[in-house]
Amino acid sequence: MNVNRNYAALHESYLFSDIAARIRAHASRGGTRRIIRLGIGDVTLPLAPVVTEAMSAAAAEMSCAGTFRGYGEEQGYAFLREAVCGYYASKGVNLDADEVFISDGAKSDLGNMPDIFALDNTVLITDPVYPVYVDSNVMAGRPITYITGDISNGFLPLPSRAPRADIVYLCSPGNPTGAVYTKEQLALWVDYALRGDAVILFDSAYERFVRQAHLPTSIYQIPGADKCAIEFCSLSKTAGFTGTRCGYTVVPRALTRGGASLNKLWLRRQTTKFNGVAYVVQRGAQAVFTREGLEQTDAQVAYYLQNARVIAEALEKKGLWHTGGVNSPYVWCACPDGMNSWEYFDYLLENADIAGTPGAGFGSGGEGFFRFSAFCDNESARDAADRIKKL
Amino acid sequence: MNVNRNYAALHESYLFSDIAARIRAHASRGGTRRIIRLGIGDVTLPLAPVVTEAMSAAAAEMSCAGTFRGYGEEQGYAFLREAVCGYYASKGVNLDADEVFISDGAKSDLGNMPDIFALDNTVLITDPVYPVYVDSNVMAGRPITYITGDISNGFLPLPSRAPRADIVYLCSPGNPTGAVYTKEQLALWVDYALRGDAVILFDSAYERFVRQAHLPTSIYQIPGADKCAIEFCSLSKTAGFTGTRCGYTVVPRALTRGGASLNKLWLRRQTTKFNGVAYVVQRGAQAVFTREGLEQTDAQVAYYLQNARVIAEALEKKGLWHTGGVNSPYVWCACPDGMNSWEYFDYLLENADIAGTPGAGFGSGGEGFFRFSAFCDNESARDAADRIKKL
Repeated sequence: MNVNRNYAALHESYLFSDIAARIRAHASRGGTRRIIRLGIGDVTLPLAPVVTEAMSAAAAEMSCAGTFRGYGEEQGYAFLREAVCGYYASKGVNLDADEVFISDGAKSDLGNMPDIFALDNTVLITDPVYPVYVDSNVMAGRPITYITGDISNGFLPLPSRAPRADIVYLCSPGNPTGAVYTKEQLALWVDYALRGDAVILFDSAYERFVRQAHLPTSIYQIPGADKCAIEFCSLSKTAGFTGTRCGYTVVPRALTRGGASLNKLWLRRQTTKFNGVAYVVQRGAQAVFTREGLEQTDAQVAYYLQNARVIAEALEKKGLWHTGGVNSPYVWCACPDGMNSWEYFDYLLENADIAGTPGAGFGSGGEGFFRFSAFCDNESARDAADRIKKL
Repeated sequence: MNVNRNYAALHESYLFSDIAARIRAHASRGGTRRIIRLGIGDVTLPLAPVVTEAMSAAAAEMSCAGTFRGYGEEQGYAFLREAVCGYYASKGVNLDADEVFISDGAKSDLGNMPDIFALDNTVLITDPVYPVYVDSNVMAGRPITYITGDISNGFLPLPSRAPRADIVYLCSPGNPTGAVYTKEQLALWVDYALRGDAVILFDSAYERFVRQAHLPTSIYQIPGADKCAIEFCSLSKTAGFTGTRCGYTVVPRALTRGGASLNKLWLRRQTTKFNGVAYVVQRGAQAVFTREGLEQTDAQVAYYLQNARVIAEALEKKGLWHTGGVNSPYVWCACPDGMNSWEYFDYLLENADIAGTPGAGFGSGGEGFFRFSAFCDNESARDAADRIKKL
């Protein structure tokens, strides 16, 4: 018996435990001001009323013989897949319901999707990055190359500097950087994938934070993307589902490699290793896509965007280079005065009682940068901005 | 770009679509009696009141800022892991909460668990079998050997006839056979695993159907099993959660291979590729383990067991060899008069308007046998039994 030896190559991340330890140490020194936490990317607003009402109603259905539901389809109930199609149609993207797979969140599908690809495929990942892309391929032993984001490319690496690869991960709006690819930039990636027979795994978890109409909210708004891209979406940040667990993944029927339909491979993977999302949760998710649900969750997104704007303005005033803050709940800034990520973390904690996230925690390309999360209340964001301005 | 070539080696299963097609064809010939469906292993009773009340209350919590929950731990909330430990304690098995992983169902964890094992491990699978064990290893390209269940071993294959293997799948009470290993028999498997450095993946999804006190309801009731076994449990059949999606998997801390803790490997797998089960669902699951919840769900299990008993009695009266029917929701019988599985399916459908599941659908070892599912209402079970007796 041998365990999967690739697990030994995983980097243990102590990022958030290190952050917590430093906050505890700082608090124990007994300052008078409250510490403002802008570190973790978890939502703070409760679920929209339309969502919890739908979940309660669904729970009631499950308690009656006449309306009880047993096994659903692994890929999700038709009512939710059709609601997702309706949402895509509002973006000008036409999908069939069987191109949509309901999941328990983007992380699961991003982590499991590589199952359908051969182990000898090469992987291209931007740096800094959401660690799941890296770790799920390290676990499978696939060779990974990185393409670095920096100030010169606005943390939006482009394929002109990229080596050939089979699987490419892109995230827009980016986590941790908040940077958003334009349609022209995404078209370059689509062209790269089509020419090189690559598949783009497009993490679109923050798409609803995009407010500028010229920016894409789906890679399928780029012609040809249905032949080279899989898109991962989530209700976690867009509707407060971090503790409720529902997302959706689009695998177009036009997407084939080596004669095989990736849609069919993923369906086979899911029917074998997944049993679908709880009925009550899918009813809650469906409610998000109603007119009322979109209004209620839009107000939540706007609330967080207001926080991001306030923080970004303070950085602007301090003359710190930054990206994100508009079209994203994250603000990503260059650390001042040549500080590295952790030095700036300590500096902010000691002098402003603000806890953010050191950019180095997202890969070596994040060193010298810092992430502020706007998932907090308006008052905290305003206070944090005031404190930053006074530094 | 290459897709995972192993997927091409998967057998497409048309079992349940074939069954549905034959039922449709039979119905279209216009019989007068209703067709009794004893094919699919899906529950029919609604969720217990204690469960749906807990889910509604949790949904209400999620709608208030003061009680809202964002990300939970990937391995599940402590309240549910501790409730599972309490349930195990009632079986005489002591677990720590960090040995319990809450999942969205046994199928997901059974399918994903092989991720933590090397690809060159050999796999031993009983035949007939729940297809997920086979398919998830075919997808990874692992070599599989089979050990056959038959009348001589009561569909409970023992290691005396088994070749050496690294990973062994056992299911007790069995799906599709309903057969239950005794403690002495399981002890042989534990001994086999300890001597050969193997790991047993023990599917215990039907443990609550075991009513005879001398039979084990957990492999950890066998000394030494904590050093060689992972146990998969589910609320799907025991509490009607097939559409609500919650299970739990036990990976003991004492279980190590090649110096690596399988508990830590699985935790790493889950934190990377899973984000935990919805808070509302975990509250519903917690309610199952309260005194009231155990009473309410026990009544459901008893209801299905009554059906199984009635069906088994009819087979007994017809002189058909069978197993299951007690301690299991499935009854597994030898087809009469040398019929093969599909011939008996057609015979039952045409002459008794009963639809079951041909044993051959669960592997070649199931040829000549037939599965009846007791997940139906009492009246259907009684009617089916009457019709069988009159054949």
